[in-house]
Amino acid sequence: MQYFEDIQPGAVREIGATTLTEEAIIAFAKQFDPQPFHIDPVAAKNSAFGGIIASGWHTAATVMRLIVDSAIELEASLGSPGFDDLAWLKPVRPGDTIRARMTCIDKTPSRSRPGIGSARFLIETFNQNDELVMRFTSIGIMRFRIPAKH
Amino acid sequence: MQYFEDIQPGAVREIGATTLTEEAIIAFAKQFDPQPFHIDPVAAKNSAFGGIIASGWHTAATVMRLIVDSAIELEASLGSPGFDDLAWLKPVRPGDTIRARMTCIDKTPSRSRPGIGSARFLIETFNQNDELVMRFTSIGIMRFRIPAKH
Repeated sequence: MQYFEDIQPGAVREIGATTLTEEAIIAFAKQFDPQPFHIDPVAAKNSAFGGIIASGWHTAATVMRLIVDSAIELEASLGSPGFDDLAWLKPVRPGDTIRARMTCIDKTPSRSRPGIGSARFLIETFNQNDELVMRFTSIGIMRFRIPAKH
Repeated sequence: MQYFEDIQPGAVREIGATTLTEEAIIAFAKQFDPQPFHIDPVAAKNSAFGGIIASGWHTAATVMRLIVDSAIELEASLGSPGFDDLAWLKPVRPGDTIRARMTCIDKTPSRSRPGIGSARFLIETFNQNDELVMRFTSIGIMRFRIPAKH
């Protein structure tokens, strides 16, 4: 997400990748989303999913980590007010390797807070077969590299 | 979320509560969202937030756990295709106790898959001061209690 001046609407950045192990999928879900198809291999096999799948929140948090590691300037980031329209499109299964593509939609300087702006990014997540597994629109708030004059 | 027949549009359910410790906030963020204001008490104190705040993904995952524990019929749940318009409205800080309110917006039987339907819920999360800290609209897919006749 860099500094506000660095953000270029239309720019595309490829991010990742990381592999979700069965152990990690079950550990996350036991803590946050203990539904049988996330934590119980036998129940999952007999479910509509045919096997363990990652909690969608685990997939989302994993993509957040990919973004922090490679696309956020920590000195510039002021967090996020939220995001729009998150879709979990295909299951993420143990051993799947996911990566993300981050496309800047637009950016807007703050009217009330000089030196700060926001930008929207389409975040698409793919598995190792290049299938789109998750999509959402993220909003980031960041500083200007050069503070506004007052 | 129960079985599809049990879902009543307009029904409100209160869920929770749970307390986020600083230890848990930092542990989650070190794994998934290692920005200084989530993991480093000194840097966080000097940040715009004035202290450690929970990763928004941690808050969201914590609310998912509250929902699974008290509002999902595990035999009925078939997961979720996603959700809309998640807003992080106020920081969640160490020691904050959060609870959720789940309001059913509407429900729709599947046209293509007899015995299955979806429902939308407004999920509002409050802190111990009854301040709204997070809001999103969730979609759940669930079975009918009584399978459709073919």
